[in-house]
Amino acid sequence: MSVLRLDETTGDWVVFAPSRRLRPHDGHTTPAADARSLAPECPFCPGNEALTPPEIHAVRDRGGGAWQVRVIANKFPALTIEEDTARERDEHEFNSMGGCGAHEVIVESTHHSLFLAQHPASHIEVILGALQDRYRDLMRDFRFQTVVIFKNHGVDAGTSLAHPHWQLVATPVVPRLLRAKHVTATEYFDRTGHCLYCVLRDREMAAAERVLATNEHFVAFLPFASHMPFETWIVPRFHQASFTQLRRERFRPLAEILKAVLLKLYTGLDNPAFNLTIDDVPRGDEDKEYFLWHIRILPRLATPAGFELGSGMSINTVLPEDAAEFLGRVPVADSL
Amino acid sequence: MSVLRLDETTGDWVVFAPSRRLRPHDGHTTPAADARSLAPECPFCPGNEALTPPEIHAVRDRGGGAWQVRVIANKFPALTIEEDTARERDEHEFNSMGGCGAHEVIVESTHHSLFLAQHPASHIEVILGALQDRYRDLMRDFRFQTVVIFKNHGVDAGTSLAHPHWQLVATPVVPRLLRAKHVTATEYFDRTGHCLYCVLRDREMAAAERVLATNEHFVAFLPFASHMPFETWIVPRFHQASFTQLRRERFRPLAEILKAVLLKLYTGLDNPAFNLTIDDVPRGDEDKEYFLWHIRILPRLATPAGFELGSGMSINTVLPEDAAEFLGRVPVADSL
Repeated sequence: MSVLRLDETTGDWVVFAPSRRLRPHDGHTTPAADARSLAPECPFCPGNEALTPPEIHAVRDRGGGAWQVRVIANKFPALTIEEDTARERDEHEFNSMGGCGAHEVIVESTHHSLFLAQHPASHIEVILGALQDRYRDLMRDFRFQTVVIFKNHGVDAGTSLAHPHWQLVATPVVPRLLRAKHVTATEYFDRTGHCLYCVLRDREMAAAERVLATNEHFVAFLPFASHMPFETWIVPRFHQASFTQLRRERFRPLAEILKAVLLKLYTGLDNPAFNLTIDDVPRGDEDKEYFLWHIRILPRLATPAGFELGSGMSINTVLPEDAAEFLGRVPVADSL
Repeated sequence: MSVLRLDETTGDWVVFAPSRRLRPHDGHTTPAADARSLAPECPFCPGNEALTPPEIHAVRDRGGGAWQVRVIANKFPALTIEEDTARERDEHEFNSMGGCGAHEVIVESTHHSLFLAQHPASHIEVILGALQDRYRDLMRDFRFQTVVIFKNHGVDAGTSLAHPHWQLVATPVVPRLLRAKHVTATEYFDRTGHCLYCVLRDREMAAAERVLATNEHFVAFLPFASHMPFETWIVPRFHQASFTQLRRERFRPLAEILKAVLLKLYTGLDNPAFNLTIDDVPRGDEDKEYFLWHIRILPRLATPAGFELGSGMSINTVLPEDAAEFLGRVPVADSL
């Protein structure tokens, strides 16, 4: 059972989820340390489906056979649909609300240790499709204001189970950092009539110093003001506020550029820990002009310390154009 | 040589300091792994003063003998006084400015491995006094908008050299997170006529569920909406916007409560990695009514992952009242 509490000094709602203390860690240290295709004790491996909460969704082989991608509720959820969103103020005037939301796990494939980019683009496309299906379905619950889609790779990126997976968290409030980005982009739109992210994408493509990969529909670049070394964005080359709106024929080029970028990072940086997130709009803004959904890949090569935690200001020791040049020279084979 | 670049999606200025890639790591893994009082290769140990940049300030034994606390410029600074603060916009409209600022290191004592709380309160008082002296002196440079004071303890908290030290970074802009706190507190003051932090302190003392220690002038508590397990604040029991204004007779009680809190954390959590920062006002607001300076101690017990990095929302698995109860039961000897 979870609860949200309001930090009045910043406006953040903090999720308290004591039951997540109980979640297992399978003891892996790096993904490379466990290269098995099947792990008998892994709850995400085929044959162990009974170890997980009930299946929410799955993509199966034609004819309804074995699953390819499987979606389950997180066994140790940060937020749950059973809670409500009523705000409460206690006798000392502290503000809280129920831990209403949803927390799902998308198991990438039946393979225990295959890195995302090692799958063919056709399978990555299936994963991305499942993410969109779940995102759209979760947004049918009007209590949810945003869906945060993310993937953790490696222990240093906070993952506890090695079997590759993604997560979706539906939140009952718009998280403050996302809200700040929406407000900034809205003000930019009000002032200029343009989508800030489309403008930044076009500037990056014009500067051409930090672009890592392009195809007809997407571009990958390391942004001018990257907060951390090798931070990489994948951005649509067309305007679209929400990933929920992405049409199916654009999933293959997205899968291809995601695969190309991840292979570069995997090879060039020796399989770094990273987080991947999709920045998106809140409920109701899916057709707006101010925002462009995009993927952020955040390698965990440096440890934020007191300066960063105290001030919120990042210190980055690698210029993104240097990182882009380095990655540009990394040769990648289509399969590893 | 550093440069700041503007992240237009959030308003953050990001510090780019490529030379910090060259800074040494002395290879320690936990503080306990190196219990020497003197390390021949450590640049912060007595006898090795020639290995550091020139001394900026020192507190010495009576009669001008050996130093007790020593302040030096950071050899690998994030920001330097030689840069200027002029904003530049390049031909692609990206915004940057010079890496103007200052970055100093305060060596806590001559002892290579003594934990801060193992010093007598009288010595901690000397350290705090040196921090205030440097803070005040740095603010004489009108280009600096804030001074961020912090301490990293342990590799997981991002420290690279084991010899205990603090750091001060003077920044040429107010970091966005601090600015957001100032704006929130200013709006609260405009609306209510009260200092938000004084109100929160009084609520925490009235609730009495999360208070860890008190003395006549300070209180330590784990805030209602803690962002991470065992986050602990030390807050003055009187109104004062800036640590620069703290009178000398209040340094001893501050040293005493800081020592008591750190001993609890050290003993109860087996010497955890942590960051410690002082939240303060920007230049010119030192006498204002809207803000109360305070110390935040942030144990690094959990790894923020994709959800936190993507949304900015924290998931905390420990309720602060449970953490406070746990720490309240931890017996601590005055010396370890």
